[in-house]
Amino acid sequence: MSKPSLPSGTRDFGPEIVRKRYYIFQTIRQVFENYGFQPLETPAMENLETLMGKYGDEGDKLIFKILNNGLSDPDKSEKARHGFELVLAGKNEKSITERALRYDLTIPFARYVAMNAGQLALPFKRYQMQPVWRADKPQKGRYREFYQCDADIVGSRSLLNEVELTALYAEVFERLDLPVEIRINSRKLLAALAEACGGSDQLTDITVAIDKLDKIGIEKVKLEILGRGLNEGQWETIRTFLSIDGDNNSRLAAVESLLGHLAIAQEGITELRTILGNDPPGNLVLDFTLARGLNYYTGIIFEVKAVGVAIGSIGGGGRYDDLTGLFGLPGIPGVGISFGVDRIYDVLEALQRFPEAVQAGTRALFFNLGQAEARTAFRLMQMLRSANIPSELYHETAKFDKQFKYAEKKNIPLIIIIGSQELENNTCVIKDLRTGKQTTLPQTELFAYLSRRGA
Amino acid sequence: MSKPSLPSGTRDFGPEIVRKRYYIFQTIRQVFENYGFQPLETPAMENLETLMGKYGDEGDKLIFKILNNGLSDPDKSEKARHGFELVLAGKNEKSITERALRYDLTIPFARYVAMNAGQLALPFKRYQMQPVWRADKPQKGRYREFYQCDADIVGSRSLLNEVELTALYAEVFERLDLPVEIRINSRKLLAALAEACGGSDQLTDITVAIDKLDKIGIEKVKLEILGRGLNEGQWETIRTFLSIDGDNNSRLAAVESLLGHLAIAQEGITELRTILGNDPPGNLVLDFTLARGLNYYTGIIFEVKAVGVAIGSIGGGGRYDDLTGLFGLPGIPGVGISFGVDRIYDVLEALQRFPEAVQAGTRALFFNLGQAEARTAFRLMQMLRSANIPSELYHETAKFDKQFKYAEKKNIPLIIIIGSQELENNTCVIKDLRTGKQTTLPQTELFAYLSRRGA
Repeated sequence: MSKPSLPSGTRDFGPEIVRKRYYIFQTIRQVFENYGFQPLETPAMENLETLMGKYGDEGDKLIFKILNNGLSDPDKSEKARHGFELVLAGKNEKSITERALRYDLTIPFARYVAMNAGQLALPFKRYQMQPVWRADKPQKGRYREFYQCDADIVGSRSLLNEVELTALYAEVFERLDLPVEIRINSRKLLAALAEACGGSDQLTDITVAIDKLDKIGIEKVKLEILGRGLNEGQWETIRTFLSIDGDNNSRLAAVESLLGHLAIAQEGITELRTILGNDPPGNLVLDFTLARGLNYYTGIIFEVKAVGVAIGSIGGGGRYDDLTGLFGLPGIPGVGISFGVDRIYDVLEALQRFPEAVQAGTRALFFNLGQAEARTAFRLMQMLRSANIPSELYHETAKFDKQFKYAEKKNIPLIIIIGSQELENNTCVIKDLRTGKQTTLPQTELFAYLSRRGA
Repeated sequence: MSKPSLPSGTRDFGPEIVRKRYYIFQTIRQVFENYGFQPLETPAMENLETLMGKYGDEGDKLIFKILNNGLSDPDKSEKARHGFELVLAGKNEKSITERALRYDLTIPFARYVAMNAGQLALPFKRYQMQPVWRADKPQKGRYREFYQCDADIVGSRSLLNEVELTALYAEVFERLDLPVEIRINSRKLLAALAEACGGSDQLTDITVAIDKLDKIGIEKVKLEILGRGLNEGQWETIRTFLSIDGDNNSRLAAVESLLGHLAIAQEGITELRTILGNDPPGNLVLDFTLARGLNYYTGIIFEVKAVGVAIGSIGGGGRYDDLTGLFGLPGIPGVGISFGVDRIYDVLEALQRFPEAVQAGTRALFFNLGQAEARTAFRLMQMLRSANIPSELYHETAKFDKQFKYAEKKNIPLIIIIGSQELENNTCVIKDLRTGKQTTLPQTELFAYLSRRGA
């Protein structure tokens, strides 16, 4: 058969990568738990009608649909006579596909809340870390299968939730030893800006243009704004808004003098002031150029940027008014954030911030130097294992050289040698492959020796 | 829109269930790591040709195939004019589907080994815990999405691997506090039995029939054996084989007197004797009625049964000769085992063996009794959180009653009250909802108090 390969846009994660990713997931999970979030897992497949129409026309096209079973396996003689296409003749769309792969974690969460609203303690704080699938064109950094990692609080309009989420971001990135800026803005200020520029029907045009600022620069944003029918005077207001600078307090003062006459701006300013006034931990930066694209956010929005690495945002989120209305349960507002695990991985790699302990696999390899020797080694090894000290016994009696190579290739730091002489004396030799240092010990002291060293 | 629902055969896992499943996965993962296994993750999607033809005709039918992108989304005017079936006219099978969902973890593992053989340290010990998908008819205990949890050692013929895997099984189930029998047999004895009954072409007939013994009983196995063309004399040999009883040593002696004249039986007996002679931990039971269905096993086979609960096997595995030959890399033998996580869950539930700590979510809820009170509570709470004591502040100022209800519904054991009086005195009141006991403490002692109680 032909050489096996992977579908494009998908990845295998070998041991080293799984361990690093696991470190990121576990760090985030622990903080989620510390903040009172509860875990949720939903199935990879959803009914097609649960997903379709929720992500815009572009999104719909990127949903992976699953062939109804049996369809691609027509009766073979039929197939030979008529060709494959006959299988589908006369079928409607539903008989071809009724299920699809999860495209994000938000819609399945909304479906879950709608289906279980009666049993949930509101506000419901859930976290979810699972893969999603998108039929995007694969390119560097963009995959067809990738993990999302979300935390949401639904059923509460309290700003305390926003304060909590900025604190949560700060704590996760502090634990990951990753310097970040947590940028915040309010969609209400963007709404006020649109109002100041002639009406709320400008909101989408303005948001879409501002969202591109990082990529295309201010001059092209201007062209786009003018191209969308706004005039130079209106652009001047937008330019002033986007140029607001200084520390958070002076930014708030500046935006107040620009838009403070509008009620919706006052709301946004009060909310931002409340959050900043809570003095949450972390490097919180008011950023009026933050727009968060075309989505369902209505209040505070967040974005996290790594400091010192040129890479897009490594997290983002915001407040929305209505999570579950599409599923027949209106009036559930919420706020949520997300961690971009693939990019966090890349940043930790670039800054070399993965702790060495992340790669700790097997700590000790017992050499296999004969049947009786191996029996003693096995017994000692089982003692280490039951104390959670990962260890191995080489799988067969072999030359020293071969066993050394296995330890090296698997990056095992310690080897433990029990040859005929050690067997006779009830001792063992411990060799540290990192330092070359060698120690002979009574076998009865091996466990204490390794425990002491935190091996 | 219609009420949202889940595709049949799939499940949501809410917080309580995720936590219990996580406990099982983490217990197994820790033991896998202690035994020197390394983690692997492969994508949910594989190329169709990687999967097809690997699981037999029945298996092929149960593979979920993914529609190539764009196919179900024809130009709308086209669709209106011609109906949906036109979209597929003239296309061959490949233009409909080229990818499919993982059906098990073994074939993706084989593909990975074939693709990365050059870089792997052999023997390669990998573990993998990921969901798989099968288009089986859903029924009680059978799902279309479920996790598999496998450990394999490839690139070694040493029996030490089998010894290790029985020890690993014993350790996992001991940690889960689940009494089990680890049953072992050798496919070589089944081969010998076939030889004794007329030839190796009887092997499949005999294996299939024996595999049904638990379900249909000895009389029906006899009918099936006779129906497949064996005679009464041959059945007598099989019956004798299946009836072998006593302790492991007397079983070995009995099988030796029945089949020991055949070389292949001698091999199997020697192997079983070696494993048992190593005196591995756990309740290892020689079981000649164990067949493990129609699969690729060639040597030792395993199966784990829970003691005291009527449920199928909760684990199984065995030795195979050739993992990767189908992918162009012959000569890689191995041995592997698998844990049935869904059934383990059911058994732990039935025996009530989930430790209480598994459900430990939020430990302490700070009541929200006003702005200044909440600020102090927030500060104290952040201290607890940074020490990994999960805690929450009620999201808004509200009546005692409402905040109590939230704590109760979320099963939070401790509430911490800072009202105006406590704020003035720098104290806080801790109420234990399990005992009703109430304590007043200086705020500075809260952290030490909770740490001491292992909260």
